Amino acid sequence: MVSQMPMATLTPDTQSLLARRERVLSPSYRLFYEEPLHAVRGEGVWLYDAQGRRYLDAYNNVPVAGHCHPHIVEQVTRQASVLNTHTRYLTELPVLVAERLLATMPAEMGSVILTNSGSEANDLAIRISRMVTGGTGVIVTDCAYHGTSDLLQGMSPVTGLPLGKDVFTISLPLEMPDPAAFTALVRDALDRMREAGVKPAALLVDTIFGSDGAVSDPVGFLKGAVEEMHREGAFVIADEVQPGFGRTGAGMWGFARHGIVPDFVTMGKPMGNGHPVAALVTRREIAEAFTRHQRYFNTFGGSSVSCAAALATMDVIEREGLIANAATVGGYLKQKLSDLAARHPNILTSVRGAGLFIGVQTPSGEIATRIVNGLRQSGVLIGGAGRGNAALKVRPPLPITQDEADYLIQQFEQVIQTTAG
Amino acid sequence: MVSQMPMATLTPDTQSLLARRERVLSPSYRLFYEEPLHAVRGEGVWLYDAQGRRYLDAYNNVPVAGHCHPHIVEQVTRQASVLNTHTRYLTELPVLVAERLLATMPAEMGSVILTNSGSEANDLAIRISRMVTGGTGVIVTDCAYHGTSDLLQGMSPVTGLPLGKDVFTISLPLEMPDPAAFTALVRDALDRMREAGVKPAALLVDTIFGSDGAVSDPVGFLKGAVEEMHREGAFVIADEVQPGFGRTGAGMWGFARHGIVPDFVTMGKPMGNGHPVAALVTRREIAEAFTRHQRYFNTFGGSSVSCAAALATMDVIEREGLIANAATVGGYLKQKLSDLAARHPNILTSVRGAGLFIGVQTPSGEIATRIVNGLRQSGVLIGGAGRGNAALKVRPPLPITQDEADYLIQQFEQVIQTTAG
Repeated sequence: MVSQMPMATLTPDTQSLLARRERVLSPSYRLFYEEPLHAVRGEGVWLYDAQGRRYLDAYNNVPVAGHCHPHIVEQVTRQASVLNTHTRYLTELPVLVAERLLATMPAEMGSVILTNSGSEANDLAIRISRMVTGGTGVIVTDCAYHGTSDLLQGMSPVTGLPLGKDVFTISLPLEMPDPAAFTALVRDALDRMREAGVKPAALLVDTIFGSDGAVSDPVGFLKGAVEEMHREGAFVIADEVQPGFGRTGAGMWGFARHGIVPDFVTMGKPMGNGHPVAALVTRREIAEAFTRHQRYFNTFGGSSVSCAAALATMDVIEREGLIANAATVGGYLKQKLSDLAARHPNILTSVRGAGLFIGVQTPSGEIATRIVNGLRQSGVLIGGAGRGNAALKVRPPLPITQDEADYLIQQFEQVIQTTAG
Repeated sequence: MVSQMPMATLTPDTQSLLARRERVLSPSYRLFYEEPLHAVRGEGVWLYDAQGRRYLDAYNNVPVAGHCHPHIVEQVTRQASVLNTHTRYLTELPVLVAERLLATMPAEMGSVILTNSGSEANDLAIRISRMVTGGTGVIVTDCAYHGTSDLLQGMSPVTGLPLGKDVFTISLPLEMPDPAAFTALVRDALDRMREAGVKPAALLVDTIFGSDGAVSDPVGFLKGAVEEMHREGAFVIADEVQPGFGRTGAGMWGFARHGIVPDFVTMGKPMGNGHPVAALVTRREIAEAFTRHQRYFNTFGGSSVSCAAALATMDVIEREGLIANAATVGGYLKQKLSDLAARHPNILTSVRGAGLFIGVQTPSGEIATRIVNGLRQSGVLIGGAGRGNAALKVRPPLPITQDEADYLIQQFEQVIQTTAG
């Protein structure tokens, strides 16, 4: 799925850009696809390459409202022309963002802190959890990804990096037999913590389990785990960087689909439709307890233009009915992918997910990689995920239409037929 | 200097906004000034409050090119309308940013990684230093501030938070007798590390020592420390979040003023004139060694609009000769502040700094706070820094004119006379 090798098919311009890139960017960067995509324009669900060819972007969960949405561009421009400053001055924008976020959440959630990335939000949620509980133990799934900071890399086993201190993993089954199965996994991790003499601080979960390959069902399986964590005096952090802002089609947040009230909600990627803005929301009493330990300031977090981007993105999600669209087109897409899987059971072994976050299981990372690269050649962008990278992640922008979903399915079927053949 | 108490002088509108803010934002947020500033507009070096009153912004080092600079707003808008995507697709923008940054640095610096905040850049620099050296020991000054992540809060003793594991501090004299004094401090920290059985990884320094109160002289005092660190197989991280992008008036970077070649250069705040964009630059061989340990991806880091903001900010710094202006007007301002200090030696005990990063020492945090609040009432925004918050930080946007500097001095003198009286 990734490659640094210039392909014979690349144009001289693209090859030259690739060479410049490899000269000045760190070699730790990786490009997607055997034939890298040289992107020059985005509009709605489409990305265009340097040759003017278009690709249905079914990978990026950042441009939730569609690439370059005019309302968001306009609001960002307007604010950037007037004022862009930080939260140590009194301005209305961060207050508006906080009020609007809290209005989408259970009444228990009362305090907002704005950051620049989901990583900064998760890093802070762990920090606060440890300060306030006095514990250190953190539970994550064994294919989790929670961010780029030093602290979070140790809580992101999908990267293959060593686990951080006092981090315990649970091994998530892709098909959960019943809700109690997840509770039992968390209970087992808590028992292992106790045996190791570690006091628990938090369960940190992406509520759609994106990097695990989209584990969505049965609905409600997070409930028992919340009770277990609370019984131990520890917290639950709902990492909404992937499912948040309507993607699951069941309200704004993935945790709501499971009927839980977490202690922290962290969000990032889609929040500003591409502008770097993110947030942590917590219960008022937790924010107050944290404040007794320290103050927190983040230079760009909550700055005026970042807030304008977040407000404009929420405008579009509401005005264009994007959550309902995620449910409808997402349901349609999932059904069509399930039909496809039924016709090709040796290649597509199961379909999971909610709304417009769909995971399609294949037997191996090799097969998944062939499909991902085949689709890229056919004009559809998706990615790999999960154990051995054997799952396919399908996550188009929320305004995708049924026709566009049909196009995706059509290309998918052709690629599957080639892969099968 | 900070307050959460609504003042009697606040208008009902501002009081109502303050109440809304306290309801929804975490109490860990703090507002500047006894009477908070309700900012509604920014232009050049000026901020305007809700009553239309203007303030010379001599505090914010983020809007390096001036608030709401039209060229930067235009470039951000143009890019936001066309494409805003990540570094896993091939796009020219991050390559242009990296090429342009490297062109301002010694030839040894060869690899760029883009992030969203100086915190993310410093967190990664420490992570890479520890991975590549195999050491863990980090040296910082005892009033240092390096960022908001869990890792960096333990390397930011000015916050009053406990030091992180294997973090050693040095106590920086505000007036360094000679360059060797700093070398001796670093040597002593390395000796303490050896006694503690800790292998050194990095010296992490803000090259203008902003949170220490701006310790700028004698020029070259970092040189011996670099040699000491290299002799131990450890690295030097030049944290350019404060001095970078021309602020010291002596080239783009604070480290260059000291004639050193660091192993990492981290940058943030001014890089996008307010847009969240930041970076880490390192030697090619360090980036290659890091890549053998792990890949690194940052969703918003290096995204198209963030890169456009960085390029436009560098355009303005070059086109408007802002580095030369920082040297000229900064030198003028420092001289005028020194004259003021000579007239009020009991209140202003010394003046330090380079270019438009000036630190003015007062005898106590209490006096500094009175001056900061007095200036805010007089229409000039500055902040406190250093041990006991007894230093004054003066850091206007780089396009400040001599007339505006005169205005600052005039208000300063009036406030000093009141404070003295």
